[in-house]
Amino acid sequence: MKIAERINRLGTETAFAVSAEANAFAAEGNTVYPFHLGDMNIPTPANVMEAAIKAMKDGKTGYCPNYGVAELRDVLAKDVNASHGTAYSMDNVAIQPGGKPTIAKFILALMNPGDEVLYPNPGYPIYESQIEFHGGKAVPYGYLEGEHNFKLDIDAIGKQITPRTRILVLNDLQNPTGAECGAEEFDQLAELVLANDLYVLCDEAYFDIRYEGQSQSFAALPDMASRCVILYTFSKKFAMTGWRLGASIGPKGVIDVIAKLNVNDESCSNHFIQYGAIEGLTGDQTEAQQILNTLQERRNTAVDILNSIDGISCFRPNATFYLFPNVTRVMQRKGLTDYNVMRQTILQETGVSFCTRLHFGRELKGEDQLYVRLAYSGIDTSEIKNGLNKLKQFLET
Amino acid sequence: MKIAERINRLGTETAFAVSAEANAFAAEGNTVYPFHLGDMNIPTPANVMEAAIKAMKDGKTGYCPNYGVAELRDVLAKDVNASHGTAYSMDNVAIQPGGKPTIAKFILALMNPGDEVLYPNPGYPIYESQIEFHGGKAVPYGYLEGEHNFKLDIDAIGKQITPRTRILVLNDLQNPTGAECGAEEFDQLAELVLANDLYVLCDEAYFDIRYEGQSQSFAALPDMASRCVILYTFSKKFAMTGWRLGASIGPKGVIDVIAKLNVNDESCSNHFIQYGAIEGLTGDQTEAQQILNTLQERRNTAVDILNSIDGISCFRPNATFYLFPNVTRVMQRKGLTDYNVMRQTILQETGVSFCTRLHFGRELKGEDQLYVRLAYSGIDTSEIKNGLNKLKQFLET
Repeated sequence: MKIAERINRLGTETAFAVSAEANAFAAEGNTVYPFHLGDMNIPTPANVMEAAIKAMKDGKTGYCPNYGVAELRDVLAKDVNASHGTAYSMDNVAIQPGGKPTIAKFILALMNPGDEVLYPNPGYPIYESQIEFHGGKAVPYGYLEGEHNFKLDIDAIGKQITPRTRILVLNDLQNPTGAECGAEEFDQLAELVLANDLYVLCDEAYFDIRYEGQSQSFAALPDMASRCVILYTFSKKFAMTGWRLGASIGPKGVIDVIAKLNVNDESCSNHFIQYGAIEGLTGDQTEAQQILNTLQERRNTAVDILNSIDGISCFRPNATFYLFPNVTRVMQRKGLTDYNVMRQTILQETGVSFCTRLHFGRELKGEDQLYVRLAYSGIDTSEIKNGLNKLKQFLET
Repeated sequence: MKIAERINRLGTETAFAVSAEANAFAAEGNTVYPFHLGDMNIPTPANVMEAAIKAMKDGKTGYCPNYGVAELRDVLAKDVNASHGTAYSMDNVAIQPGGKPTIAKFILALMNPGDEVLYPNPGYPIYESQIEFHGGKAVPYGYLEGEHNFKLDIDAIGKQITPRTRILVLNDLQNPTGAECGAEEFDQLAELVLANDLYVLCDEAYFDIRYEGQSQSFAALPDMASRCVILYTFSKKFAMTGWRLGASIGPKGVIDVIAKLNVNDESCSNHFIQYGAIEGLTGDQTEAQQILNTLQERRNTAVDILNSIDGISCFRPNATFYLFPNVTRVMQRKGLTDYNVMRQTILQETGVSFCTRLHFGRELKGEDQLYVRLAYSGIDTSEIKNGLNKLKQFLET
């Protein structure tokens, strides 16, 4: 069958190839330390599972509304208001089969062909893919190394805005860098958004995966709620990645359009699992807190070992479950400056599997530092120690 | 927020408005007989539920591959081969969050803007919506009343094929008419497909909802497997509408593209429910058979009462859970020839709620008969009797 031309513009997550290589290496009898996975090896809280099972057995096995279960939309709006300082109601919420579906639906609802869309690079590769797939022009902006963490390159955003720029994709608490805006950066961004009449996709997938302090939402800034759609997911907070449940949260007008896209694309999200999410938001939080504690311990273990390796420097982000160490010096010393050679050599020599900067978009002009991405969501603390100590030994000899 | 222009071309399922009106009428304390629902009021088989619960508790709560769980793809290919006479392998299967997602993904994968796509009208309204939304030209073909059932209007298909025609949407065992092709019609269609180099979306949502005889698949005809993608769903056979699980089945090349769209749109389908589907396909069939028995009894009850009403004639389709009676004479007698007035009057007078021909596309040129659609998937036999006897009383006095 002759494939449609638009498919030439469709990207993908090249990180799946890393998984395939790691699995092949493991199948040969080798130990693999899986830092490449954005998945979690932590069980979903038992109370969430039990609530979903009860709903299934109670007959919540037929269709639910295309907007999602009303009670879930209501408690989610309240939960987001409590953590964000926003004023959403259930009318502002359309439940989705995961966090990711909000990306395509936001773009379909708001981007016209030819529109320019600013998106983070390094960043989640699906933004660029969906922008180009639906006929937009994807314009990358980057991140800079600050004192304690990566910082959004706001100058790069401001300089690239043209009369055709319509949308800003903002993934604060960012995958892969862990970057986080401060109040001053948020204010500068809001000024740019207002001055240039932009709409913003706020990808908040990691908003609740936070170890110290309180996450802030760009959508909570003055005049921003009417211009922002929040990508919300239950995947990380409740270790529900494979359940596929999330939401689009924003102005009623665009949420109505997104809910109409739901009718066209998949009718609705799985019915009974939405009762699990209601329990997650309103029930006992012990296990959800334990997930954060587990992740925090892993983060500290990984950051400490990475920074002990001569030639690696690694920030300790407050949020996400990713690390994006600068490995330029050590890789130059080892002669491993080609990303794919570096990754494959280290897998073969140590079993440590990870993604590189290349899995998060094409390198931008002027980039001269080398970065890799380690996820600690799918690997226990003891294996983090074993794997990264092997890495240290390999890199320091 | 200013909505993108393409949204002007997006349709919807107007039947949702019927549900809303029925719910409002019920909320006033009235009895409603819900023949409007395409949903099912039958529980999912217990063995399917238990297998999904076991998988959930066993930790199948992380991502699965974008193509779906390998074991499910394997057993589904074998199950389809057994019932269809095809020769698919798991490479031909991409699991989806429902039957519906195959519609948009098929169109995105194979239709270029400006292509003409033949689609059934009356028919499932999402075909027309997705074709136009993604820049195609939706060309309707209709159905004719035959001796024992509706028949595809093959002449209308043949006459409307142009050099720009690229795709045929075929919903054999059709919603709403219950129409079914015979061997001769399939052969004629296959000739048209080959002569005009067409691709076919075979929407087989009701393939397994069959009371007598054996369903046939257009994809099983000689030379057709390479031109067809089957929309498969677990929704009806196992009363799993709200679980949202289905599959796209077709040539590996297009399935690979569809699986790449999965990566972009929702990553994957819910992981643990796929183990419920494996049990559904390979485990005890007692409850699945009971679902068919229940539906058959409902069909016979409804058809018998409808045909006893002076001025209504109703076929008894072998498949689907829909009836599409011709109500022209009775409605002319009652002065209810406006579809919406007819529907609302009958709801108010009898509590019987149903969809009309208008919920399945715009009327075609030359249509002079009136049809309504009754679904018997969401209403018990006793209520079918009560409701349709009230309808009979109202229409005959």
